[in-house]
Amino acid sequence: MSRRAGAAEGFVPTATYQLTIRAQYPNKPGMLGRIASTIGEAGGDIGAVDIVRTNPASIVRDITINARDNDHGRCVLDAVRAMKGVQVRSVYDSVFMAHVGGKIEIHNKMALTGRSDLSRVYTPGVARVSMAIHREPEAAWTLTVKKNSVAIVSDGTAVLGLGDIGPLAALPVMEGKAMLFKEFGQVDAWPICLATKDVDEIVNTVKYIAPAFGGINLEDISAPRCFEVEERLKKELDIPVFHDDQHGTAVVVLASLLNAVKLVKKEMSDLKVVVCGVGAAGVACTKIFMSAGITNIVGCDSKGALYRGRDEGMNPIKHWFAQHTNPENLQGGLSDVMEGADLFLGVSGPNVLSVGDVKKMGKDPIVFALANPDPEIKPELAVDHVRVMATGRSDYPNQINNVLCFPGLFRGVLDARAWDINEPMKLAAAHAIADSVGKSELSEEYIIPSVFNRAVFQRVAKAVAEASYESGAAERHRKVHPVYI
Amino acid sequence: MSRRAGAAEGFVPTATYQLTIRAQYPNKPGMLGRIASTIGEAGGDIGAVDIVRTNPASIVRDITINARDNDHGRCVLDAVRAMKGVQVRSVYDSVFMAHVGGKIEIHNKMALTGRSDLSRVYTPGVARVSMAIHREPEAAWTLTVKKNSVAIVSDGTAVLGLGDIGPLAALPVMEGKAMLFKEFGQVDAWPICLATKDVDEIVNTVKYIAPAFGGINLEDISAPRCFEVEERLKKELDIPVFHDDQHGTAVVVLASLLNAVKLVKKEMSDLKVVVCGVGAAGVACTKIFMSAGITNIVGCDSKGALYRGRDEGMNPIKHWFAQHTNPENLQGGLSDVMEGADLFLGVSGPNVLSVGDVKKMGKDPIVFALANPDPEIKPELAVDHVRVMATGRSDYPNQINNVLCFPGLFRGVLDARAWDINEPMKLAAAHAIADSVGKSELSEEYIIPSVFNRAVFQRVAKAVAEASYESGAAERHRKVHPVYI
Repeated sequence: MSRRAGAAEGFVPTATYQLTIRAQYPNKPGMLGRIASTIGEAGGDIGAVDIVRTNPASIVRDITINARDNDHGRCVLDAVRAMKGVQVRSVYDSVFMAHVGGKIEIHNKMALTGRSDLSRVYTPGVARVSMAIHREPEAAWTLTVKKNSVAIVSDGTAVLGLGDIGPLAALPVMEGKAMLFKEFGQVDAWPICLATKDVDEIVNTVKYIAPAFGGINLEDISAPRCFEVEERLKKELDIPVFHDDQHGTAVVVLASLLNAVKLVKKEMSDLKVVVCGVGAAGVACTKIFMSAGITNIVGCDSKGALYRGRDEGMNPIKHWFAQHTNPENLQGGLSDVMEGADLFLGVSGPNVLSVGDVKKMGKDPIVFALANPDPEIKPELAVDHVRVMATGRSDYPNQINNVLCFPGLFRGVLDARAWDINEPMKLAAAHAIADSVGKSELSEEYIIPSVFNRAVFQRVAKAVAEASYESGAAERHRKVHPVYI
Repeated sequence: MSRRAGAAEGFVPTATYQLTIRAQYPNKPGMLGRIASTIGEAGGDIGAVDIVRTNPASIVRDITINARDNDHGRCVLDAVRAMKGVQVRSVYDSVFMAHVGGKIEIHNKMALTGRSDLSRVYTPGVARVSMAIHREPEAAWTLTVKKNSVAIVSDGTAVLGLGDIGPLAALPVMEGKAMLFKEFGQVDAWPICLATKDVDEIVNTVKYIAPAFGGINLEDISAPRCFEVEERLKKELDIPVFHDDQHGTAVVVLASLLNAVKLVKKEMSDLKVVVCGVGAAGVACTKIFMSAGITNIVGCDSKGALYRGRDEGMNPIKHWFAQHTNPENLQGGLSDVMEGADLFLGVSGPNVLSVGDVKKMGKDPIVFALANPDPEIKPELAVDHVRVMATGRSDYPNQINNVLCFPGLFRGVLDARAWDINEPMKLAAAHAIADSVGKSELSEEYIIPSVFNRAVFQRVAKAVAEASYESGAAERHRKVHPVYI
């Protein structure tokens, strides 16, 4: 198993931190070379260099530079600014530029070019459509945007790895998510960022805005509130509710595991699994593992294994863990329970797993270290001691990325008009993702398909729709409302 | 003043009720003529006739027919169905077809073609944008969709003239409104249809979803709840809140009146105005009339004039009317207070104004009969007794249509980043609409511009933005958040 040396973010410049510096300097031979050397010495990686304008006295160029991170970008910029004779006229940051003015917009499906268009889509024609829905609410699924729309709901309390940064700061992430919904699932998703963290208020707000949506995607709501919010909304709404941080992660983790066990030739029912981190993702992964036939799971938090009889730092979800997992009732720290483990799943924080811990694992160990941006163990350290490794990052092989699941899953859910997203549907999604890696393609470095393999989403959508019919979460031959008088 | 005879909806076939009948019949000469005659005898108006397929034995054609209304469409259809040898294969209704699958969708502003795109719009790049907003919340106005987005909020209790038909049935109307926002104002509006009618719950829900929006457009919420909802939201939110049924109507009514008084050469301060109907629109029109300098206004409900001392059928808003209008404290029915009126504004129901009432009005009477679809007095009856007449309908001259206001108004509000929509801004919008009709164009049949005159929206946007700066509802030279590191 090999790694691209030094490919980690924070170590080499990437396009994630790309600046374009507009620099003006005297039109003399050798100046560009000096600027390039200065940037290179500061560790910046030069991309495109364009001439903006030139005259006999001076020249203005746009110089695009990849940097390692914010601070490094600033260092490179300062180095250029400090050069004698060089004037930095402006600086563009390609990431920020991509977000200016928002990343999504509304698009009318029909042009409005004259009165007859207006009279169809708005008054007076629309009144007939409204009355048709008033008489038969089912018709809303044919005659409105409900059929294809999802609310992406977040209270901004657990945004990426950034924590409780609030609803406004969460908005760029939710917009990004909406883009992914559209690009990969042709789903129309709109961000709903909530100015409340109260469970009752979140539940009520989502309930009240639900009529215009065909599904609810909960996002970046911190544990344990996310469990109650999801559970209550699933009960109270007649449209599907899906907390992506839980179930999206669980589906893609299971998909990865399904392929990893093919490589190591083990059975699900024989695996010993250690789950490090019992937040939203850890709980959901554990539950989907159980649905997939794994019985020997040990959950760990920062205080060690969750076992029956433990009193320290417990909460309802940790009690559930202690009751339903850990069949041997193992106690002790993470290191103590790693003995003979076949899979380590990390959904916690950076560097909590040591090389020594990995060495204690069983034959052909599988390590999924999903903490972002810094995994539970650096792949460079683990590489010689594991058979299969996956992370949450795009710069290592085997990226476990929720994007593989939610667009196709919701596509299938909306196509089938499912009123729930249940365990069989999630399992079907996991199998569809796993099966997207062909037998001949499967290897230690390729257990999970790329998000740019568009066929994955179609497979997931089809499998999820089929599972929704078979599990009773959707009606296979639903009467379609007639679209005429 | 002339009218197109019989142009009223319900009287002649219009494209609002357009069917396409796919008919199969024996391939014999004379058959199409017989079908056309049958349709004509049933009162249907034939448009396009297309051949779908033909063979020596039979022919299939799509025949497009305008009908008067639902029932009439069905009669025409039944007449065709009853023809010997003719088989109706399918029927399409162009209004319903325009709504199938919803009328709006999400559009990504950038293509996502590879990993570097993903890393900019989503993880890991988006984390830097989120943190920039977390540090400086103002940056959300530059870096997210908030800058250009409006929530169209309705509880479905007063949808068009249809009444309380619920949030799901309101959705096609709100989608239509979103289309108008985009088409005429380049504003991204998303429909929020609420499954609650409770004022507290509406207020809370809108408050909680506000962070991702730059403005709130309240729509089709019944009086008197709409007044409290708007008032409370205006106080509690830092983004502008606008109840279109009140203020959109008021702005366009005032614009129409500004031009009508030019024709009759009267001063605002000299007018006697009778407002029939004291719901959302009647209250807002009265208030904007007062802002525009009109002092003699008499409000009427179904029981007659609102005056100081009246006890019957009062509510808080009617008390306000009695206290603040009707300087002569007139009593009696609508007919009793029409004597010498310069303007009749009807925002009530069909046929409440008689020819006799109009005859009692002052010189050069102005009648705005806005009840939809049937006005307070039929234009055909009023035509000989009024100088200027306007209705809410597109099939008469002088359509008073909210569409003239809200897209441009919100464009101006968002451009200026106004935190309120105040009286000076509404007056500015009314003047901008009125001024869009040139001096040489102004006539009894053209006091208000067409919605397809795109220059109107730009004028409104500019005037509203300017008024927001001058009235202190926006900051003229706001610091723009830098979009680089």
